[in-house]
Formats: sequence, structure tokens, C-alpha cells
Amino acid sequence: MTKKQLIIGAILHGAGGNMASWKHPSGPADASVNVKHYLNLVEKAEGAKLDFIFVADGLAINKDVLPHFLNRFEPLTILSALASVTSHIGLVGTLSTSYTQPFTVARQFGSLDLISGGRAGWNVVTSPSTGAAHNHSQDTFPDHALRYEIAEEHVEVVKGLWDSYEDDAFLYDRENDTYFDPNKMHAINHHGKHFQVEGPLNIQRSPQGQTVVFQAGSSDAGRELAAKTADAVFTGHKDVESAQAFYQDVKSRAEAYGRNPDEIVILPGIGPIIGETEEEVEEKYAALRNGVSIDTALNYLGRYFDHFDFSVYPLDEPFPDIGDIGAEAFKSTTDLIKADAKKHGKTLRQVALEATTPRSPFSGTPEHVANEIEKWYHADAFDGVIFGSPLLNDGLHLFIEKVLPILQERGLAQTEYTGTTLRENLGLPFKQNRHTQKVSEASV
Amino acid sequence: MTKKQLIIGAILHGAGGNMASWKHPSGPADASVNVKHYLNLVEKAEGAKLDFIFVADGLAINKDVLPHFLNRFEPLTILSALASVTSHIGLVGTLSTSYTQPFTVARQFGSLDLISGGRAGWNVVTSPSTGAAHNHSQDTFPDHALRYEIAEEHVEVVKGLWDSYEDDAFLYDRENDTYFDPNKMHAINHHGKHFQVEGPLNIQRSPQGQTVVFQAGSSDAGRELAAKTADAVFTGHKDVESAQAFYQDVKSRAEAYGRNPDEIVILPGIGPIIGETEEEVEEKYAALRNGVSIDTALNYLGRYFDHFDFSVYPLDEPFPDIGDIGAEAFKSTTDLIKADAKKHGKTLRQVALEATTPRSPFSGTPEHVANEIEKWYHADAFDGVIFGSPLLNDGLHLFIEKVLPILQERGLAQTEYTGTTLRENLGLPFKQNRHTQKVSEASV
Repeated sequence: MTKKQLIIGAILHGAGGNMASWKHPSGPADASVNVKHYLNLVEKAEGAKLDFIFVADGLAINKDVLPHFLNRFEPLTILSALASVTSHIGLVGTLSTSYTQPFTVARQFGSLDLISGGRAGWNVVTSPSTGAAHNHSQDTFPDHALRYEIAEEHVEVVKGLWDSYEDDAFLYDRENDTYFDPNKMHAINHHGKHFQVEGPLNIQRSPQGQTVVFQAGSSDAGRELAAKTADAVFTGHKDVESAQAFYQDVKSRAEAYGRNPDEIVILPGIGPIIGETEEEVEEKYAALRNGVSIDTALNYLGRYFDHFDFSVYPLDEPFPDIGDIGAEAFKSTTDLIKADAKKHGKTLRQVALEATTPRSPFSGTPEHVANEIEKWYHADAFDGVIFGSPLLNDGLHLFIEKVLPILQERGLAQTEYTGTTLRENLGLPFKQNRHTQKVSEASV
Repeated sequence: MTKKQLIIGAILHGAGGNMASWKHPSGPADASVNVKHYLNLVEKAEGAKLDFIFVADGLAINKDVLPHFLNRFEPLTILSALASVTSHIGLVGTLSTSYTQPFTVARQFGSLDLISGGRAGWNVVTSPSTGAAHNHSQDTFPDHALRYEIAEEHVEVVKGLWDSYEDDAFLYDRENDTYFDPNKMHAINHHGKHFQVEGPLNIQRSPQGQTVVFQAGSSDAGRELAAKTADAVFTGHKDVESAQAFYQDVKSRAEAYGRNPDEIVILPGIGPIIGETEEEVEEKYAALRNGVSIDTALNYLGRYFDHFDFSVYPLDEPFPDIGDIGAEAFKSTTDLIKADAKKHGKTLRQVALEATTPRSPFSGTPEHVANEIEKWYHADAFDGVIFGSPLLNDGLHLFIEKVLPILQERGLAQTEYTGTTLRENLGLPFKQNRHTQKVSEASV
């Protein structure tokens, strides 16, 4: 089969994706709020012809969370700041559907998309956290099913708003005093269960038509939402088999909704440790893992279970049976953790340390990282990867300098940009305006 | 008396502040969505050492609104894009308190503030428009008093969130494994009438302490809100006497709240037409005014009265008595329009044309503009001006090239930046963190 080129994105971690990342000497300790650090990274990533950068987010903190969460730029503002100093790389950011107005989300991403010449991506999340609820005048967060119901309607409204203007609506005809054609302006007039939005949006579409929609939940409801609405899926897998199954499942679901399965790309996050030798990789891993105390690890684990307190359980006995706790929060992750602990008879200590500093099957020498990526890619386990190193700058620099040339030499990764929009970078077609499509169908 | 230097800001109008602005050949017709246009203007403004740029906003459109409203960048995203290509100029944007979460507003402005090195400003508005309500799942907008009650609590929460971290909270001490001092992190735990927000915010303060708060309503409730909470007031006046009265009133109200009146600056918007001769000014004014049809003018007037339909009234009879319509929307503006029409016996046609293309007392030759600014300034009618030309680029270019040198020669306007933050540009002190203040008081 012919497949489009491997997609490669990079997470801009700020202080890093591991509790101890910020201590690594490869970058500034204040990375998450260091503008120069972000400017350097995005310049490096664009120079390497990566397809996009990805800025994650969170809506609640306490003193025990990841350093990266404590103090960081808000995604839309930092991505907009990076938009004006870049020209080709995609700019993807996380924003929750649980505490935002679709009109605001449509405007802010629409604006980023236009400012960047069609390079914006919205990673849709539903923010399962009591802390997030308490920061937004809510007692608690909506349960899993309701959260996804809200998310689906939210995304539907945002997409509707993005089509407020057909692409030839603005005429700018000074001579004939015609700024625009009002017949090409469309109000959405949405009256739904959770949102009522009249429209139209006060911004035109970008050169890619609509902002690319990423979806990050891997539960059943998350997969359904992705299959119905997403252009790209941000996921994560421990082995190639589960990645293949996920890939097949989401593409099949998309097909069942009448979509072309090639028009939804599956992009797992990978966080390998890269070293010149296997020994160096082990040293880096040990240094990272030993940089995290067991108390910190227990707290980290608890975050997936809506800040459940694991510290009251014995460390070296089997992972405790805590029933359904966590099922309404990060469901797919907690299901995985519980199943894995049961299957391998892991202790609480093991589970906490592994959750905090997981081993990646991609970790190894540059040759190993490239081989593994090639293997998964050809096994239809993904359409590409989102690279996020647990070691601050170390990982991204090594990936770009050592791994990427191998992938490029094998013809897997691009050596030049072939387009200027994020959709082009992802091999996705321009998004037609729903109103324009109707007109052209009617005129056939 | 000694006064600090005249403050000068510039509105980035996009398509321009008049219905016919976009037709003026001095700029691109698609100015409001043209990134290069914004980049050029901000470069020009920073080169001229202006104190800040100002991006206005609106939350609802229909086919009859100002071209500038139909299609434009969202303030936070365009300001962030401009932040990374500038170094001294302040970046002020409008955001409503009626349809936003304080946590989101605090984060987004906090992030812009940090990205820009302390140059962000938030212009607080309350969005009195049924269309805005209909875009945000509301039947109607809150009445005038309630809107300001919500606004006051909203701003209070945002400011509380901005003080989540004391300025020395982050230690970044790799050797001792200490990222930050949790004792210098403060949750707001706000339980108010309209908002419940726990905090803390997940971003540190900027070099100016807190984002500068602008307030734009001039009604009694607007003045009260400004006196209590604002660092700067965006207003507008037709003559020096009313400007003086407003200035005195707001400064007195601030003093009554225990504030130093020098720490709230009054900045009217001015939109003069500038020409080499009085004749040229008249020609430019006539061209602008004749570029707007009476239907368009009636619609423009109606916007201030929550989209009231004036087209059913006779054009050349006295301005109709429409009772209290508009009193819940742009109250100070509609009060002024009604009083002025009654006082001078104006017809509906006159009122509509004047509202759409008002005459500015500042219009004239560069010398006249400078004289008028100096006169108002020395008469304590303002601390500075926010310049917004109705003629696209023409006005800002002429202001910078012809008027500013006169003001600089007279020692009124700065020729170099004296600081790097917006507070410094406005002559306002660094904003102390409320928690740090308490500690230092206790330790005295």
C-alpha cells in the first residue's frame, strides 16, 4: 500500500514531561516560562521541517503537581507569539470544551489560524479534574459520558462557526463600495442541549479552510468523538499490538461515519530516551527515575485518579483495589494502569514509579529509535508520532540531530515542506466550507 | 504642577473606525485581517516610541455593522503575535467580563504579559448587546447595574489570581531539588455571588507585577468601577470642559477609595483628521462623510441602542423620543446623543450622520492637532490620548510624521522609552503582590 510520509510533531514541554525533567542541564530550569527557550525550540523544529509543535495544557494545580504544570504559558497566547516568527510549522494547542464558550474558542483558534496563514490545530480535551471545576465556578466536573456529550456539541458549534464566511465572501471592492457579499455570510443559529449560538463568527476562514481538530481521549467515548469529528488523534501505546488495534478501531469507526479513513491521522506521543549506546540510555533513565521521590511518584499517580491519595496504602504490597475511582476522569489511562498492575501482580511502588517515569519501547540509540518508528509505521500502528522528551532539550536535539537524518535517508521523513498549512503538513485535504459545497452541488 | 509626560497610545483599527475607512487608499482594504498590516503598524508605532497599541473588540455582528467589525483578529491572539516582534510598546486589548471565566482571562492576559516582558493591558468591557448574548448561550445581556456588578467581581478575581505566586516563589534550584517555595503560592479561594474560583493560577507574575487594567465605560457605574479597579480609563469627549469634569470626577472617586489619583490615568480616544491645510482637512472629512449612505448611518446609530431600528422614523424631523431604549446598553453614549439632539434641536438625519462620522475638535493641521492636545493636557482634561484615525493608515502616519515631532519638540512626548513595561510607559508604579506586602508589613 502507499502511505503518505511519516508525520512528525514535537511537544514543547516547557519544564519537561517528567517530574525531574527541569533538573536536566540540557535546558533552562525555568523553561516553561522562558520565551527565548520556546523561540529557540520552534526555530530548531521548523529548521528540521517538523510538521507541527504541540502545546499541552492543564487547568488546575496544587503544590504537588509536575513542575511543568505549576507555571507555564497559556497555549493560545504562546502559539500566537510563535506564529509571527515562523512560516511553515503547524501550531497545535490544547483547549478544554468543559469550561469554554464555543464562540470564544472558534474566534481564538480562527484568529491564530489566520495570523499563521493556516497553521493552527486545536487539541480538544474535556478536563476531568475537580480542581479545574473549582477554578471555573463548578462544584465538580461533568461525568465521563456527559463530558463527551458536551464536547461533541461544542466542537460541532465551533466548526459551524468556522464556516460563517464562504471563502470568496470578502470582495474589498472600493470602486463599487462593496466590502463583502452578505449572501456568503452564514449564521449557525444553533439551538442545542448545551449551547445556543446564533453567529455568524466575526472572522473569515484561513488558507487551510478550518483549524485542524485533534482529539486526545482514548476511551470508547473518546474514540467515538474522534471518529466523528477529529482530523487527528493524540494517543499513546506501550506496544505495537495495542497501537495497531487502536489504529484499526478508530479508522473503522471513522469509516462507519461515512468518512475517508485517510482523513483522520493517528499520532501517538512517544517519549524515548536517546543515547549513543544502550548503556548511556540506561544511565539517563536511572538518573531521571532516581530524581523522583516515592512521595512525588504516588502523588503523580494520584493525579490520573482525580487526585486520589495513594500514600495511605502499603508500598510493597499488590496495587490496591480502589474500585471505580478514576473511571470518570482519565478513564482510558486508569483502566490501563489497573489492568497492567493486575496482570503482572505489580506493587503500588512499582506502579507509581513506572507511571512517573515510564519506559518507552522507543528508547535506545538513534538507530533503534528510527528502526522502531519505521516498524510501527509500516505495521499500521500510527501515521506519525508526537515527540516529547522527558529530558528537556536533550531529547529533541538528539532526535533532530541523530534520529531524523536516518528517517530522512530512508525516505520516511520529509526534508522540505511541501505546503504552507498544517493540513498540508498532515496530508489532509483543504476543508471545504459546508455552504459552498451545497451551492456547488446544487449548480451541478 | 509637575505632570508626567503625555501618554500616547494608538488604536490598531484594522479596517478603520468609520464605515467608509476601508475605502481610503492609504492602507490595504483587507486591513483588519492582514497580518503584515498589523506588523507594519506596530513597527511604526514602536519606532515612534508610542506607549501602547490598543486592539478593540466586539462579540456580535450582522451584515450591516462596520466593515471593521465583520472580520477581524481576536485581540489576545493578535497581541501575542505582535509581542514576539516588539520590545517596548504596550499591548492593550479588549475582553468582556460578561462572557468569560476569570480563570481564563487571568491566564491569557497573564501569559501575554509574561511573553511580552510585562507589556500587557486588559481593557475591561461589559458587552451590552443582545447579539453578544445570543452568541454565548444567553437570551439577553444582564442589565446595566448587574453587568457592572459582575464586572467588578470578575476583575477582583482576576487580580487575585494574578497574585497567586509571589515574585520570588520560583527558585529553580537544581542542586537542592527545589523548583519553588510552596509557601509563596497562594490560592484565592473566592466564593462570591457570581464566581467561585479556588486557584492558584498556573502562571507567575510579569516584570510589571500585574497586567494593566483599562476600563472603558463612562456611565456612573463605569466611573465607579474605574475608580475602584482601573489603572487607566479609555473615554471620549467632545469638548475640553466635559473632559475636565470627567477627569476631575474619576480622580476624586479614586481618591475617595483611598487611591493615589496619579495612579489612574485618563486617556480619551481622539480621531482627528489631519491635513496640511484646513481646506484639505475639510476635503478629507467630506469624502469620508459622503462615503456613508443614510441607511448605513441609521444602522450605525442603532447599534448604540442595542440595534434599534431608526429607519421607520422620518429623517428630517426632530430626533424621535424613543424613551429609555439604549439605557441598558451603551448608557453614557446614548445619554449624550439624546441630550445633544434635544439641546440643539437636531433631526434624525443630522444625529445619524454625526454619530457615524463625528467631527473631532482635534481635526486640523499638524500644528492645530498639537496645540489642541497641549491645551487639553495642560487643562487637566487628560493624561494622554489614544489615537485612532478614521482614515486607515493616513491618520497614524501623519500623526507620527507630522504631529509627534511637534509634541516632542515641546517636551510633551517622549523621544526614547524610559522603561520596558507598560506600567513604566504609563508612569504607573510596579504592582506589588498583595501577599508579599502583608509579609513585609508584618516583619516591620
